[in-house]
Amino acid sequence: MRYFREELDELQSRLLEMGGLVENAIHRSIATLVDRDEEQAQEVFRNEARINQMEIDIDDLAVRLIARHQPMAGDLRFLTAIIKINNDLERMGDLAINIVERAIVSMQQPSVKPLVDIPPMARMVESMVRRSLDAFVKRDAEVARSILLSDDAVDELRDNVIEELIGIMEQDPTTVRRALSLILITRSLERLADHATNIAEDVIFLVQGVDVRHHAEETS
Amino acid sequence: MRYFREELDELQSRLLEMGGLVENAIHRSIATLVDRDEEQAQEVFRNEARINQMEIDIDDLAVRLIARHQPMAGDLRFLTAIIKINNDLERMGDLAINIVERAIVSMQQPSVKPLVDIPPMARMVESMVRRSLDAFVKRDAEVARSILLSDDAVDELRDNVIEELIGIMEQDPTTVRRALSLILITRSLERLADHATNIAEDVIFLVQGVDVRHHAEETS
Repeated sequence: MRYFREELDELQSRLLEMGGLVENAIHRSIATLVDRDEEQAQEVFRNEARINQMEIDIDDLAVRLIARHQPMAGDLRFLTAIIKINNDLERMGDLAINIVERAIVSMQQPSVKPLVDIPPMARMVESMVRRSLDAFVKRDAEVARSILLSDDAVDELRDNVIEELIGIMEQDPTTVRRALSLILITRSLERLADHATNIAEDVIFLVQGVDVRHHAEETS
Repeated sequence: MRYFREELDELQSRLLEMGGLVENAIHRSIATLVDRDEEQAQEVFRNEARINQMEIDIDDLAVRLIARHQPMAGDLRFLTAIIKINNDLERMGDLAINIVERAIVSMQQPSVKPLVDIPPMARMVESMVRRSLDAFVKRDAEVARSILLSDDAVDELRDNVIEELIGIMEQDPTTVRRALSLILITRSLERLADHATNIAEDVIFLVQGVDVRHHAEETS
């Protein structure tokens, strides 16, 4: 049984390592956009394969532990949470790649506007990701609940950014293609925030046994 | 052991029932857009809660079966596939809701253009969803592989639709807001196709034990 505990710890460490890589990818994807720095982009591409491989390994290990040890309620809930969070992290890695790809295209054109709102939105999303993994490690439902609130703030920022970009496109149609890129990057940021929110909901379920999936509106 | 087999069958039936609801939601979401028919939209909203509840139930049952029966390789792979497909289906339900919400907003404005390319793209996506679940039931890796090819075709259609809409916005900036809605609907269709592709990859892994996740380019 002591061996099982060590395996659970090992699994959590791996998940956190993967989370660190994903956080890093998100940070660099936005740096690519804001600083027009292609070096950052290369780093994101380099890490992608590693994130993908970690997802497969974590998944396999978690399912094997469930099958082998027939864990009781608490441990089973922990292992199920790992599988779900793993899945969210992998998709977040994909979203960082999407952002980087668009940022590289944007780089070759003049800026459509100073990127006033996207950096703070990105910082908020990064903080949500970090706090969601922190909440998981500390089994802290309070922190997890605060993430559900941040998600609403991110949605509001997204609406502002998109409205502003629509206005710019309407006034100067030569900006359409570039502004559309920024809109799609904004949508990717929003989806990153949604994944962090999923993780927070998994943490709440893990700690309190309350399933808040599909009820984010009511709990936030 | 016979009881376990029955539980596995029951689980698969439930997943297929959920798949049917999701297919229906996708179909009606596009009908809402194309026919400007709000009745269709209401049906999608009505089914959403049911899809969400099914996801939770299927998940719970699958994890409990793994914990209780310590299944061997083949059954374990089947149960893991169920958990993954379940997750994809639930997200596809969310995407149908996104499409419906945008379609309702579009409805209140004059059409930006005849919707020539979106309906065939939607039909292709619906067929991918249906075939991916069919491949799962029949454990048919050939059908699953054909879905990876369809995904490339959908991406090509998406590029055409988006390019055309960018042209329209550039020419007539009063269309920006409406055309943007159609672009975001096109992106949702593309993501639906991605989820069908995920399911197809899970089927290939289930049947052949070959993990094609993250290698779709090479296998297609």
